[in-house]
Amino acid sequence: MLPSAAQLRVRFDETDQMQIVHHGVYFNYFEVGRVEFFRSIGYDIRTMEQSGLRLVVVRVDAAYRRSARFDELLDIGVDVIDVGSASLTFGYEIRREGELLVTGSTRLACVKINGRPSRFPADFRQALERAATSDRGLRT
Amino acid sequence: MLPSAAQLRVRFDETDQMQIVHHGVYFNYFEVGRVEFFRSIGYDIRTMEQSGLRLVVVRVDAAYRRSARFDELLDIGVDVIDVGSASLTFGYEIRREGELLVTGSTRLACVKINGRPSRFPADFRQALERAATSDRGLRT
Amino acid sequence: MLPSAAQLRVRFDETDQMQIVHHGVYFNYFEVGRVEFFRSIGYDIRTMEQSGLRLVVVRVDAAYRRSARFDELLDIGVDVIDVGSASLTFGYEIRREGELLVTGSTRLACVKINGRPSRFPADFRQALERAATSDRGLRT
Amino acid sequence: MLPSAAQLRVRFDETDQMQIVHHGVYFNYFEVGRVEFFRSIGYDIRTMEQSGLRLVVVRVDAAYRRSARFDELLDIGVDVIDVGSASLTFGYEIRREGELLVTGSTRLACVKINGRPSRFPADFRQALERAATSDRGLRT
Repeated sequence: MLPSAAQLRVRFDETDQMQIVHHGVYFNYFEVGRVEFFRSIGYDIRTMEQSGLRLVVVRVDAAYRRSARFDELLDIGVDVIDVGSASLTFGYEIRREGELLVTGSTRLACVKINGRPSRFPADFRQALERAATSDRGLRT
Repeated sequence: MLPSAAQLRVRFDETDQMQIVHHGVYFNYFEVGRVEFFRSIGYDIRTMEQSGLRLVVVRVDAAYRRSARFDELLDIGVDVIDVGSASLTFGYEIRREGELLVTGSTRLACVKINGRPSRFPADFRQALERAATSDRGLRT
Repeated sequence: MLPSAAQLRVRFDETDQMQIVHHGVYFNYFEVGRVEFFRSIGYDIRTMEQSGLRLVVVRVDAAYRRSARFDELLDIGVDVIDVGSASLTFGYEIRREGELLVTGSTRLACVKINGRPSRFPADFRQALERAATSDRGLRT
Repeated sequence: MLPSAAQLRVRFDETDQMQIVHHGVYFNYFEVGRVEFFRSIGYDIRTMEQSGLRLVVVRVDAAYRRSARFDELLDIGVDVIDVGSASLTFGYEIRREGELLVTGSTRLACVKINGRPSRFPADFRQALERAATSDRGLRT
């Protein structure tokens, strides 16, 4: 069970006519968790943009076990499941009171403003390594 | 009855658990209509950005008479209801087979990149005036 | 200045290519505030649905003064500005560290499942009146 | 190259502050393509709901090669890449003037209203088989 990076409450507009959260909305939830993960390891993602680099999403997936519904409180568990020199993969678990609803992953690549691949900046790698050292569940 | 600027089909993710289109989605529909209106009068809105200006939304409203549902085909009627030197207001009518569902309006202002108000560029005003002359229902 | 009913952080997907929160997103923020307002006065909105009634949005508006940006923390101030026998109007103020960004309102009507107007249930009116009595800023 | 099931134009609200279509939006595009695919094979998906069954999304993925931008016209190629007795998998290709931008897939399961798995209704399977016979690219 992944450590929860963020908690959020399902909004009305996120439901669809099946009266559940629309399946595409979970990618926004994953992103909320990812942003909070970066905050928790003390890395301001805007630093990267200032140095002319950005993280772009190259692949995502999600598996749906149970549905979330309006007004439910969800925990977004986040983990880094793979780190390379120029890309990393996050894993996610969305839970409602401990019960697993949705799992997923996102692969991100580091690119220059012109779109060319780039190695991660040193401070970014160090922040990820500190997170691993402090045993947040990070497996680098 | 306004001339239809665009036709679109309600997407599944646009419904909510009341099994109707979520009320916030209509602002996206209005925007689709507005973009097609600019195309129809031969003005490429990206020209404005290239000259260091942009149109920003300063006020919107909508009134809901009837609900749209999944997979329905909607017409977006668009009209310019007011044009000043630095702002303009669009009016909208969303219809389903002629039946009026939603009306609304958007007030847009012309600003420089630094956010300061600016007069509209001449070619923009001319395009709006041509549209009025050709009796598209534009009231300048 | 309205009492804050909810606080939320701008999500990445809520921004648009002008690098600000898309204007339509604020109606979702208003809704988050409205839901938390109902929770704060001790009324479970699902009670209404169980008695065969629902609140539908009949009119909305918003005025944009300043833009919110990614990752900013926003306060959603909520107030009931008008209560009739079968409809009510909410007012909103979105602020960032006290600074007013966006104002708006939503008019909601009480309808039966068949869409016909209905008076509010007694317990709903009582909850609104209790809120007014306790001086939450409610003006009935 | 998959046959195009639908064509759509990128909406302003679908962009994010990187000035590209937000990665989560493509799942809505896939869904538009899927709905048009069902229409093209003459099966009204609402028939299934009327018989007490529904299709639920159980797994999705997407891979992003190139970014789509505001106002671009996109083709959504759709194919059925696997059909079982109670689940099926769609594959997608999003293209801009022939250039491949995004690929993805969705696995859907047939369930009863109570959420229990169910075999597909006979008319649904027949519609899929007719589509295969008529060589729409369907591989059952």
